[in-house]
Amino acid sequence: MNLIIDIGNTTAKAALFDGGDIVEERRYGSLTTADTESILADHPHIEAAILCSVGSYDKGADELLSGSIARFVRFGAETPVPIGNAYATPATLGSDRLAAAVGAVSLYGADKNLLIVDFGSAITVDTVLRGTFMGGNISPGASMRFRALADYTAALPLCSLPDGDAPLAGSSTREAIEAGVVRGITGEIAGYIEESRRLHGDVAVIFTGGDANYFAGKLKNTIFVNPRLVVIGLNVILENIR
Amino acid sequence: MNLIIDIGNTTAKAALFDGGDIVEERRYGSLTTADTESILADHPHIEAAILCSVGSYDKGADELLSGSIARFVRFGAETPVPIGNAYATPATLGSDRLAAAVGAVSLYGADKNLLIVDFGSAITVDTVLRGTFMGGNISPGASMRFRALADYTAALPLCSLPDGDAPLAGSSTREAIEAGVVRGITGEIAGYIEESRRLHGDVAVIFTGGDANYFAGKLKNTIFVNPRLVVIGLNVILENIR
Repeated sequence: MNLIIDIGNTTAKAALFDGGDIVEERRYGSLTTADTESILADHPHIEAAILCSVGSYDKGADELLSGSIARFVRFGAETPVPIGNAYATPATLGSDRLAAAVGAVSLYGADKNLLIVDFGSAITVDTVLRGTFMGGNISPGASMRFRALADYTAALPLCSLPDGDAPLAGSSTREAIEAGVVRGITGEIAGYIEESRRLHGDVAVIFTGGDANYFAGKLKNTIFVNPRLVVIGLNVILENIR
Repeated sequence: MNLIIDIGNTTAKAALFDGGDIVEERRYGSLTTADTESILADHPHIEAAILCSVGSYDKGADELLSGSIARFVRFGAETPVPIGNAYATPATLGSDRLAAAVGAVSLYGADKNLLIVDFGSAITVDTVLRGTFMGGNISPGASMRFRALADYTAALPLCSLPDGDAPLAGSSTREAIEAGVVRGITGEIAGYIEESRRLHGDVAVIFTGGDANYFAGKLKNTIFVNPRLVVIGLNVILENIR
């Protein structure tokens, strides 16, 4: 059994894989030493673990993992990955982005061109051309946009993703912000899909992360949705090191 | 001579109009009583003034203006405007958005359909159909997006609008964020233009606010740029009350 830990900007995920399948998933605001103890107590048969973090995390959790698990990998720029990496500055690349690319290549094939959109705290839009990671862009995620409008202005309220449609012209402040953020993100991603296909021809579009299903439903394009690309990719990377 | 004061979320502008022309413009981080005293001392012949604010401001400046200028208007939901307003909740409409619409109608005509994009702290995208304000949407401006990515994540740096191109796939963290924010906003606005023309046929697109010229240069559409729609509109509103 493999333990995969993905520490993002606002949440941490722990996933347990058995023979390539996710058998359990836990989510945390931040992963503490006690959380890690609880995972290890519940799963005494973990043989290998990989930890991917884009921020800081509890060093006690790290010590516990490295002390308890025979094969423990901190995913970083030196970790070998089973895809090419043409990114100019690999040492500064968010490791979750590379992990998602590995996950996408493992699921959709190393012979395809892929546009991978991860709807997390930040939205990342990455390009993989025939099994080689080419880089990509970063912009604020939906929650971050709502939070920024409330935090950085004097009069705007804190809003969230609406259930219904996003009108072209909102008719209240709340509707204006809800529709503004939804239409902003859908227009942004539609622009990437159009430009990616103009440059690279046939491109499969894959959405992952928390808001993946929401935004896949807002776009007219054919989109593959897999909310767990990062942990799937981390498991492939961990298996690849064996 | 008319004094126009437009207090936004991050800057305040004072503009002096003489017979419909801007003769002087001043910008402030926030408008203080001393700033206001200085404007009045330099321009003893101000006959009328209008103040538009989307946030809080120095009450001393307000008292000074109302005490010194014969005709002083605080622009609000009750102020008459020379265009129609179909917005469902006019009392909560950001007065700068309505002022920009008045400015656009005065410059481009009450017989046109207009899409007005104001690139300020927030980006507002408003629709005017044949002289009637229909509402619109709100999303974070470029600076706000850069600031949010730096403030709300553990590892991302503070970036700003790049001079050059915004690649589809950035190859460093800085390039990824710069290109991500630029492509995000251009895709967002391209989506609005496309949808507005699908719904309303012939639509003139007008950009205003600080980043108007920057983003007009990034879009393929024909765009009218006027960085001062709000103060122009406020001057029209002030003249209209006479």
